[in-house]
Amino acid sequence: MTDVDVIVVGAGLAGLTAAHALVDLGATVQVLEAADRVGGRTRGGFTADGQWLELGGQWVSDEHTALRALVDRFGLQLVDAATSGRVVHVHDGRVVEAQALAQNHIELDSATAQFTALVEAVDMEQPWRTPDAAVLDEQTFAGWIRTVVPDAAARAQFTAACAALFVPDPTEVSLLHAAFYFRSTGLIGALRGIDRQAQEWRIDGGPSALCDRMAAGLGDVVRLNAPVHKLAHNDGVLAVTDDGSRYTARHAIVTTAPPMAARIRYDPILPSDRDQLSQRLHSIAVVKIYLVYARPFWRDAGLSGEAVIEGGPIPVVMDNTPPGYAGGVLVGFIEGADSLKWGLRSAAERQQVFVETAMTVFGEQAANPVEYLEYDWSMNEFTRGCYSGHFPPGAWTSYGSALTAPVGAIHWAGTETAREWTGYMEGAVRSGERAARDVMASSY
Amino acid sequence: MTDVDVIVVGAGLAGLTAAHALVDLGATVQVLEAADRVGGRTRGGFTADGQWLELGGQWVSDEHTALRALVDRFGLQLVDAATSGRVVHVHDGRVVEAQALAQNHIELDSATAQFTALVEAVDMEQPWRTPDAAVLDEQTFAGWIRTVVPDAAARAQFTAACAALFVPDPTEVSLLHAAFYFRSTGLIGALRGIDRQAQEWRIDGGPSALCDRMAAGLGDVVRLNAPVHKLAHNDGVLAVTDDGSRYTARHAIVTTAPPMAARIRYDPILPSDRDQLSQRLHSIAVVKIYLVYARPFWRDAGLSGEAVIEGGPIPVVMDNTPPGYAGGVLVGFIEGADSLKWGLRSAAERQQVFVETAMTVFGEQAANPVEYLEYDWSMNEFTRGCYSGHFPPGAWTSYGSALTAPVGAIHWAGTETAREWTGYMEGAVRSGERAARDVMASSY
Repeated sequence: MTDVDVIVVGAGLAGLTAAHALVDLGATVQVLEAADRVGGRTRGGFTADGQWLELGGQWVSDEHTALRALVDRFGLQLVDAATSGRVVHVHDGRVVEAQALAQNHIELDSATAQFTALVEAVDMEQPWRTPDAAVLDEQTFAGWIRTVVPDAAARAQFTAACAALFVPDPTEVSLLHAAFYFRSTGLIGALRGIDRQAQEWRIDGGPSALCDRMAAGLGDVVRLNAPVHKLAHNDGVLAVTDDGSRYTARHAIVTTAPPMAARIRYDPILPSDRDQLSQRLHSIAVVKIYLVYARPFWRDAGLSGEAVIEGGPIPVVMDNTPPGYAGGVLVGFIEGADSLKWGLRSAAERQQVFVETAMTVFGEQAANPVEYLEYDWSMNEFTRGCYSGHFPPGAWTSYGSALTAPVGAIHWAGTETAREWTGYMEGAVRSGERAARDVMASSY
Repeated sequence: MTDVDVIVVGAGLAGLTAAHALVDLGATVQVLEAADRVGGRTRGGFTADGQWLELGGQWVSDEHTALRALVDRFGLQLVDAATSGRVVHVHDGRVVEAQALAQNHIELDSATAQFTALVEAVDMEQPWRTPDAAVLDEQTFAGWIRTVVPDAAARAQFTAACAALFVPDPTEVSLLHAAFYFRSTGLIGALRGIDRQAQEWRIDGGPSALCDRMAAGLGDVVRLNAPVHKLAHNDGVLAVTDDGSRYTARHAIVTTAPPMAARIRYDPILPSDRDQLSQRLHSIAVVKIYLVYARPFWRDAGLSGEAVIEGGPIPVVMDNTPPGYAGGVLVGFIEGADSLKWGLRSAAERQQVFVETAMTVFGEQAANPVEYLEYDWSMNEFTRGCYSGHFPPGAWTSYGSALTAPVGAIHWAGTETAREWTGYMEGAVRSGERAARDVMASSY
């Protein structure tokens, strides 16, 4: 006899989705969340005047069918995230129109065409079986970009566009992984500014409101402040939390990012391929930053608020003003090594560099925000980074099959394990549904 | 008041050396070792007839001055590891003389010359300040090899030589890291078979004998079976082991491999750069395998027993017969993705592939070993791999400075932190001495 059928480790979107799916299928669950809140890599914040903002994952696309179904189910609404007006690039130190830049560079057209061919060739179920996988996985995305875009200015533009699509450091991911990622999200058109990014919608109240409702719907089976220290899985599963509490189940679904899942002590230890994979996947250090203004003044000049800034510490800025809010909200990201450097400085200094960046893009009116908000994901103890686990060279081809393979009674979920919309909230939701189905179908 | 001055996490060579150095300097120490034995990535084994063999790190070079001083101090002897006779390569499926192969390939000469120039340019104190560091760190060693050695057969030879020097998968390390590694060890000549590798000596009784004596010399301050679960470092250090035991000290030295150090829970959490680095460094999956024969028959044919085998699961084989032993001992390594694949099979199957490999190289007489021994480092719970932590692209340039930077009262040791002989036992010893000096000089 076990306490429940399934222990779910982590109460982010993947874990909450898995728990609900299991309950729907008639199983009993225990959700163990390390942090003092649910939501994982989503997180809510409020302006001084009470407006909700998202400090973590936030965007919803028309194609995010699984997430949208959850939004419906839990009685929330989507709100329009669309902005109109011109998108600008800060290119070579100058502000230029994105559209003009996009249409006028042969190297970028060629690079995008070549990359599109790579993206279309990826074997999405078994990326390590993609034609020429070994060669694609032995080079970095950055190294490949350098080869196909020799012009430094064009390369900076391409790299900035990648950062805007949540691949902030092409040095750290293999070309195969980059191709997999862009195939998974279908966002390759956005690299050339042709298509919209997957940013049509936001959840009214933020994804944290959804996670809160999902947790409330599960009731007291969600335990907060319960980091799982040990998972024994000899005969069923025994989870021991940091305070010594013990929970037993027939199965477990671990939904944390793979680098964090590796910090649980397993008994018996995990197979080599899974552990080796965990040693290689890494999350991105990122600080999400906000400037709140009295009004969205950039719209007066016909600007959308969206800007890609090459070479600076904040590669992308967007208008993130919630519909109906009187003020104007700009969101930005400081990522990778830049976020470490800026993370060591004061919030006032981070605010200052964001203000300076905004002034470069939008002019003098950006000088006087009414508020600055930020959240440093790399300093979140239970995520140590955000977006998603990225694969360095060699990881997919040597260890990729361990990403989703159950280990006895232990199953794996989380946006990293999704084949469609990996790295997005949608991927997390789909992974939770998939893991719940797998557990119920498991005869283990 | 604390229990001791310094807690040393890990009783491998780095930890034991640090502990002795601290005691020599007048400090009190507590060594906490997770496993049921000391030795870390060294490990002893015995043949059925009682002969010691090394199942982990083993080779000592003339230049390993720090390690040799320890061997002297603890009353052990070095024994000659030299072999005479011809070295062979299995190249393109055929057995050829290594010397002949080494002297006859323009591409390899050119590649070695180019790599030598890169190696000599590395800034060993701050590798991220090496000229063109960003470009060197954005490509993999394998990708670079493919460019400078277009001929597939020559490339296989170069790659096999790297494997013999403990860089089994050039896909997974950046070119900058490869250059750093070969500069650190001075072994670039060995890539072309010109110089001896760092394998002149062995420790009589094996390094495990040295570690056992070092532990005995420390007495009851070495506690086994004590995985450190948590390190609090608000005011001094509090280490909590898996069974709830608590130890306090003014400082700690963590000597485990960086991927394992990341699995300790720190309070407060580590700075972003250190955590991000830990998410990127990885250890190599490797199975060390032995065939014991009634006698070293290969010597009859003038062969040294050393062979580099391109394309097979065992890229390098060596004569590892201890001096004075009547039998003949061949050692081999199954590494990386090959070790995962072969690790899932039975010991009998691994023995069989080693026998087949030995027969290819040494003929029919290799068919009948009297014994097979093996140790799978990837399945060691507290190392999850061996050799040393390798740096993927981007890690040195973005996070390298965190490798040795103390975090308050916590210092870092282990062969990964050594600038000279990183990846070797010598690096571990030097790192332990360095960390002990740093702690004593710290005013924290």
